[in-house]
Amino acid sequence: MKCRQCGKQAVVALRAHNTALCRDDFIRYLENRVTRTISKYRLIQPGDKPIVAVSGGKDSLSLWYMLERLGYPSDGIYIDLGIDLYSATSFEKAKQMAKKLGRKLFRYSLSESFEKGVEELSRTVRRPPCSLCGSMKRYLMNRICMDHGYNVLATGHNLDDEASALFGNVLYWKREYLGKKGVALEADEDHLARKVKPFFLCSEKEVGAYAVLEGIDYVYEECPYSVKAKTIMYKGVLNRMEEHSPGTKLQFVKGYLEIAWPGRDEAKASRTYCATCGYPSYGEACSFCRMTERFGRLQPLKAKLFDPSDDAGDGAASGGGA
Amino acid sequence: MKCRQCGKQAVVALRAHNTALCRDDFIRYLENRVTRTISKYRLIQPGDKPIVAVSGGKDSLSLWYMLERLGYPSDGIYIDLGIDLYSATSFEKAKQMAKKLGRKLFRYSLSESFEKGVEELSRTVRRPPCSLCGSMKRYLMNRICMDHGYNVLATGHNLDDEASALFGNVLYWKREYLGKKGVALEADEDHLARKVKPFFLCSEKEVGAYAVLEGIDYVYEECPYSVKAKTIMYKGVLNRMEEHSPGTKLQFVKGYLEIAWPGRDEAKASRTYCATCGYPSYGEACSFCRMTERFGRLQPLKAKLFDPSDDAGDGAASGGGA
Repeated sequence: MKCRQCGKQAVVALRAHNTALCRDDFIRYLENRVTRTISKYRLIQPGDKPIVAVSGGKDSLSLWYMLERLGYPSDGIYIDLGIDLYSATSFEKAKQMAKKLGRKLFRYSLSESFEKGVEELSRTVRRPPCSLCGSMKRYLMNRICMDHGYNVLATGHNLDDEASALFGNVLYWKREYLGKKGVALEADEDHLARKVKPFFLCSEKEVGAYAVLEGIDYVYEECPYSVKAKTIMYKGVLNRMEEHSPGTKLQFVKGYLEIAWPGRDEAKASRTYCATCGYPSYGEACSFCRMTERFGRLQPLKAKLFDPSDDAGDGAASGGGA
Repeated sequence: MKCRQCGKQAVVALRAHNTALCRDDFIRYLENRVTRTISKYRLIQPGDKPIVAVSGGKDSLSLWYMLERLGYPSDGIYIDLGIDLYSATSFEKAKQMAKKLGRKLFRYSLSESFEKGVEELSRTVRRPPCSLCGSMKRYLMNRICMDHGYNVLATGHNLDDEASALFGNVLYWKREYLGKKGVALEADEDHLARKVKPFFLCSEKEVGAYAVLEGIDYVYEECPYSVKAKTIMYKGVLNRMEEHSPGTKLQFVKGYLEIAWPGRDEAKASRTYCATCGYPSYGEACSFCRMTERFGRLQPLKAKLFDPSDDAGDGAASGGGA
């Protein structure tokens, strides 16, 4: 298998794009695609102050690293879910990348704030861990971003993540989500950072290959709770279709961006705000405020800062009270 | 397993509807659903003259039979594709049902009209047999229906057929089809019969159980060409999801009817007509006229009539010239 660009030995075959590439050409190829995604959908613009949601996995670490290379230097946020070894290892990988890039990393720990990990907390409110985690992370990421003066929150969601989420929403015609899920969610004055997904059109395999070829050290394990999630089934189903017709996922997600995504204005118009914290909410109180009230230990929301340029390295950076 | 209606031994378990029923209650249950579908979407109204597209399989024969029972007596159309034994057997089953119901059956034979079966014809125009067959049947069914004074064409498409077709259209965001595929396609003056699908909300399994329990004698074999069709893969994928979450197909199709189907007016507005035969077309000439020109034997379009009340039984009923 020869590289379609330079004729040297190819290391990556991309059936969906009907091409095969060597290491250097693949990296250039993927970075170009991300650059085009950022520019076409105006994900990051001059003057923006972006921050990356870092989990320690291949997607978020590759994103953080690639944004630096593409000229969009960013800091990071890490939410510690208190899942024993998994969380400790993930944070180590995140810190390592912060050092490599010389960028700041904010860390918010669920277990330090509530004296419980995500499993115990989920039992308290009788919600599945994945649902609780999603809700908490969504809130905390945005909140820390706003509290520390960032206006763009970049996440590592890839094509496979988006295709499977979209798949579930289309299957059940969840109109309320159809408009929201997209390559970007617009900012909302002082309450909501612009959420962007620069890997929206890059498959899981492509991002994985990028991480490996760039020697990015990430946590290999999936979150122990995610195994049963329904999206895993959707991913399996989509992979089967991709196998049968390469490019299916990409066409599905691109078609969505062209045809259904314009419905996003409708979603924006219907936003409401939490009476307690003032941040976006579905009801009178946002789910974060409702949950933390039940967790019993209300306190100012604080993220700790890891700054590689600072020798002490682990000082507290406080935000506003919750 | 007990019948949820009467407590007797159940013979059918319907996971999507979270119920189990005995023979009589199942038949009543399914017939009620079809009656509600017909009435809610106004598929057949007083004064209509319906005709059923009969293939000889379980869906179309069950539909023909059920419509008779529900007070919508209909005649039938059978298109002979010239696929050796398969076509001969299918026509026998169709004729048998015509006799049982005492209704007329129109038969149009591709091989008699063009001296070639669907396989040879598909090679002539370099189209896959399924694509050619779909195109020819769509045209001929409508044409025979109009030529003989029927105004409603009922087809046996079931929930699984609709879910898989819709699935493919959603996956590739085929907007032009999204509005058209529905429980009914409205009539268009003198050129298009109203096409209706009374089994739209009945699964393949339910229709199969109905056929068996009512002793309907149908052709078991699938069409020999359909095995490779992409919809078979979609059906497999949907069945996997149905297994995981019973009711998925029904929710998918119902959600579509509520949310996306209203887009059908857009589809109707964009209809154009064939310059040769005057029937609906995507281009200047409809695909039927374009194809038959290449098949080389143009002649008046004639369907033969099988009338069980007539002793001779196989007289020709001619329509207008093509």
